[in-house]
Amino acid sequence: MEGVISGTALVASRSAAVAAEVDRAFDALLTVPDDPRARLYEAMRHAAIGGGKRLRPLLVRAASDLFNISRESALRVGLAVECIHVYSLIHDDLPAMDDDDLRRGKPTIHKAFDEATAILAGDCLHDLAFQLLADEETHPDPFVRIELVKALAAASGPAGMAGGQMMDLEAEGASFDLATVTRLQQLKTGALIAFCVDAAAIMARIPSEGRTSLHGYARDIGLAFQIADDLLDVEGDVAVAGKALGKDQAAGKETFVSLLGVERAREQARILVQQAKAHLHAHGTQADLLRAIADYIVERDR
Amino acid sequence: MEGVISGTALVASRSAAVAAEVDRAFDALLTVPDDPRARLYEAMRHAAIGGGKRLRPLLVRAASDLFNISRESALRVGLAVECIHVYSLIHDDLPAMDDDDLRRGKPTIHKAFDEATAILAGDCLHDLAFQLLADEETHPDPFVRIELVKALAAASGPAGMAGGQMMDLEAEGASFDLATVTRLQQLKTGALIAFCVDAAAIMARIPSEGRTSLHGYARDIGLAFQIADDLLDVEGDVAVAGKALGKDQAAGKETFVSLLGVERAREQARILVQQAKAHLHAHGTQADLLRAIADYIVERDR
Repeated sequence: MEGVISGTALVASRSAAVAAEVDRAFDALLTVPDDPRARLYEAMRHAAIGGGKRLRPLLVRAASDLFNISRESALRVGLAVECIHVYSLIHDDLPAMDDDDLRRGKPTIHKAFDEATAILAGDCLHDLAFQLLADEETHPDPFVRIELVKALAAASGPAGMAGGQMMDLEAEGASFDLATVTRLQQLKTGALIAFCVDAAAIMARIPSEGRTSLHGYARDIGLAFQIADDLLDVEGDVAVAGKALGKDQAAGKETFVSLLGVERAREQARILVQQAKAHLHAHGTQADLLRAIADYIVERDR
Repeated sequence: MEGVISGTALVASRSAAVAAEVDRAFDALLTVPDDPRARLYEAMRHAAIGGGKRLRPLLVRAASDLFNISRESALRVGLAVECIHVYSLIHDDLPAMDDDDLRRGKPTIHKAFDEATAILAGDCLHDLAFQLLADEETHPDPFVRIELVKALAAASGPAGMAGGQMMDLEAEGASFDLATVTRLQQLKTGALIAFCVDAAAIMARIPSEGRTSLHGYARDIGLAFQIADDLLDVEGDVAVAGKALGKDQAAGKETFVSLLGVERAREQARILVQQAKAHLHAHGTQADLLRAIADYIVERDR
């Protein structure tokens, strides 16, 4: 029908716009200095610019649509969470961790540069995340900014993403059950996805008791995202994914797919997407992008 | 004279008290969970508890004395800066960086645990620093807390400590001149030392134009500290230092000692300490600990 835009087209167009904004902003933030730190900034640029689905900044924007948060605030929070995501990929790809050569279709940072530079570039993006949130340009209210810092530090630290990565290291040959794999993934990928949605509520000064449905949405799409990732790891195309696949099985790690099988895992992802959208029932068209993202998360091929 | 306490004794007693408080606080903050993240917390505890001079928390406390900042606030800011310092040591000691087996007289984290755990433990202490600053227990005013976050992120990132570490990596065989070595050290160790003093001024809501003398003090003791470190690297005792020595020379890196010679380097450190104390002329006995720290920095043997 004319005038009606499909969910997939909505995600595609908004995602491309957000990705372009993220690239432009990183380009401006990461000017290479004319001194011996040049290599460090070049490594940060290699990792941060030009790649990835930018799902997290898109989620911040989509959740911000619910509360009429400014585009500038949503973009800067999106950049902060992308800094954390990118830093975690750099460290995760290191030889001592997942030992990956390819990321977003390009050589990983320790391959394109060296391990020491990769460690430092990750550390610097980690700092940049908090610098972005602390800056008054992100939000005029210092209380909002400090709440964002608190939430992001919790989501990325040992009770969030990094804790999930530790569980992931321990997963090798540990025969985790479904409850433990679920907990692992809620920390490893879920905490940062939940932050994206929570950040919009923080900026809108919604008290935590008013965020239950948004938290439900975030939890469900976080798990659906991970199941889709596990399915891609088994069935995906390396050229499209832009990273190595089949690694979990090779490492002897239990995943949603190894525990449920392909068919039940796919079905579970579909159920989670329906649940996620049900959490948005009180919202009108302002939640359309959040709904479309939920669908996209299980339909994507990378 | 009775009733008069020497500078050395003052530093020794206050330093021991601060070190005990820091250890107690880390012990309480880093409770090991009963799940697969236990190893991560154990690594963080190994790195953060029981060791080091705790110079940075002591400096925060000493600068806080000038402005009657509460002990609790000074301690929590001291913990945050110590988290950054410890995380940087963990990453710096990794095989891809300085490849050190010994730190504070104990095996380094990647030796006691493994490299992946060391990377993650460093990352988690990095997050913990910002979590500590963002918490209302650190200071009741969110504006003060966000200024602390901003200052610490700047001091630890590419325009601070991590930028200095990158310069240090590039220093190998690069024949840096005195100006470049000074800049390197101002970033690598000076930025975090300056934060310690600056944090007290931020908590006291002193505008930046009123912090000139404190910044001068911090710059001078930062350089004096590094010259003393370079001297220890050449002349120190491994058993007392608790870490490997003689590394700069072995790596072909220029240092204050290689560029100035031992005698002129020692003289320069003494001049810097006198300069540092001169910056405190407007302050009375409240600045005695800061003065004593300046003396201690060049007299220490580890």
